[in-house]
Amino acid sequence: MKIYDVEGFPNPARVRIALAEKGAQDAVEFVAIDVMQGEHRSEAFRQKNPDAVVPCLELEDGTCISQCNAITEYIDASFEGPSLTGTTAKERAVISMMNLRAENGLLNAVGTYFHHATPGLGPDLETDQCAVWGNRQKATAEQTMAYLDSVLASSDYLAGESFSVADITAFAGLAFADFAKIEVPETLTHLTEWRARVAARPSVSG
Amino acid sequence: MKIYDVEGFPNPARVRIALAEKGAQDAVEFVAIDVMQGEHRSEAFRQKNPDAVVPCLELEDGTCISQCNAITEYIDASFEGPSLTGTTAKERAVISMMNLRAENGLLNAVGTYFHHATPGLGPDLETDQCAVWGNRQKATAEQTMAYLDSVLASSDYLAGESFSVADITAFAGLAFADFAKIEVPETLTHLTEWRARVAARPSVSG
Repeated sequence: MKIYDVEGFPNPARVRIALAEKGAQDAVEFVAIDVMQGEHRSEAFRQKNPDAVVPCLELEDGTCISQCNAITEYIDASFEGPSLTGTTAKERAVISMMNLRAENGLLNAVGTYFHHATPGLGPDLETDQCAVWGNRQKATAEQTMAYLDSVLASSDYLAGESFSVADITAFAGLAFADFAKIEVPETLTHLTEWRARVAARPSVSG
Repeated sequence: MKIYDVEGFPNPARVRIALAEKGAQDAVEFVAIDVMQGEHRSEAFRQKNPDAVVPCLELEDGTCISQCNAITEYIDASFEGPSLTGTTAKERAVISMMNLRAENGLLNAVGTYFHHATPGLGPDLETDQCAVWGNRQKATAEQTMAYLDSVLASSDYLAGESFSVADITAFAGLAFADFAKIEVPETLTHLTEWRARVAARPSVSG
């Protein structure tokens, strides 16, 4: 299978960490999309992914899967190794909930701030900015950091005692926050300690 | 188990349709939350759901699950009957992708328009409006309607030949569009025909 992406971008990082957790990087051919030149918005790429964003997974039969959560679910189901999305219905529901809270409240909020209230990827790509909304999303991201810290006060990972896609999403969200210059308050010691532990995992550090 | 919700609201409708598809309505006790009086933002409700929205599922052991997709996944996994989220990894990925496109592009876009660019639920609840962003989301919803129509030109349902959570989400999104007075263009005949078929399902009409 192929993954169309840009190395180092936040959502592509989620997929690459998930693959590395499953030891499955070698099962995938990565195809670089030149987002800075707008290739993700080309007609050829939209044929694969009408959402016009990276990452996009292409299966051997040509089926294209976009939406990061759909891709990481597919990876988790397709390769051996510890589950990233849970096994029981309850585990899966808690992980899914926490993953969506991290995605909506942190990663996507940071993304909206970055693309709408900062120069973002530059004037050629950021043609549709809405600064007032972007700045509100910065506040949402900061509130979500505090919420995640409160969760980590009583559990090792965001959805309990096992590492999951929720941790991957939040970790990518914090990396994006760094890039967008949204600081993680020093008072959030549980979040900072968890972040250091996640950063030390071979799937992230390697 | 209990579901805290408001009958007739868009996201609660998704959960109720999923339960009816599984024939599992009687397994749930519904608890009405007085959203119009702000009960969803009370400290007592935030203890169950820090997202401060309905619906919220409470399991017998007290675990609370919010985020509509996490709830419908839990329902699908917990009760007998045809799968609403797919069985193979590929089916599940396609359904998840289409569900997220319907959610982000239609239901949530309509919701943002409604809460930010119309009187919404009234001045006591809509204290944080951003009309410029809300109006853009109306355009997103209209573009998504056209996209969904194009998908339905060549398949019976949004994620292939079987009814799934993607159809439930899009159906709830169109109902919300009606309520918010965003018209479905008459030219979208595939979408209109699909909508009539979904409306006739016992889980919706009954």
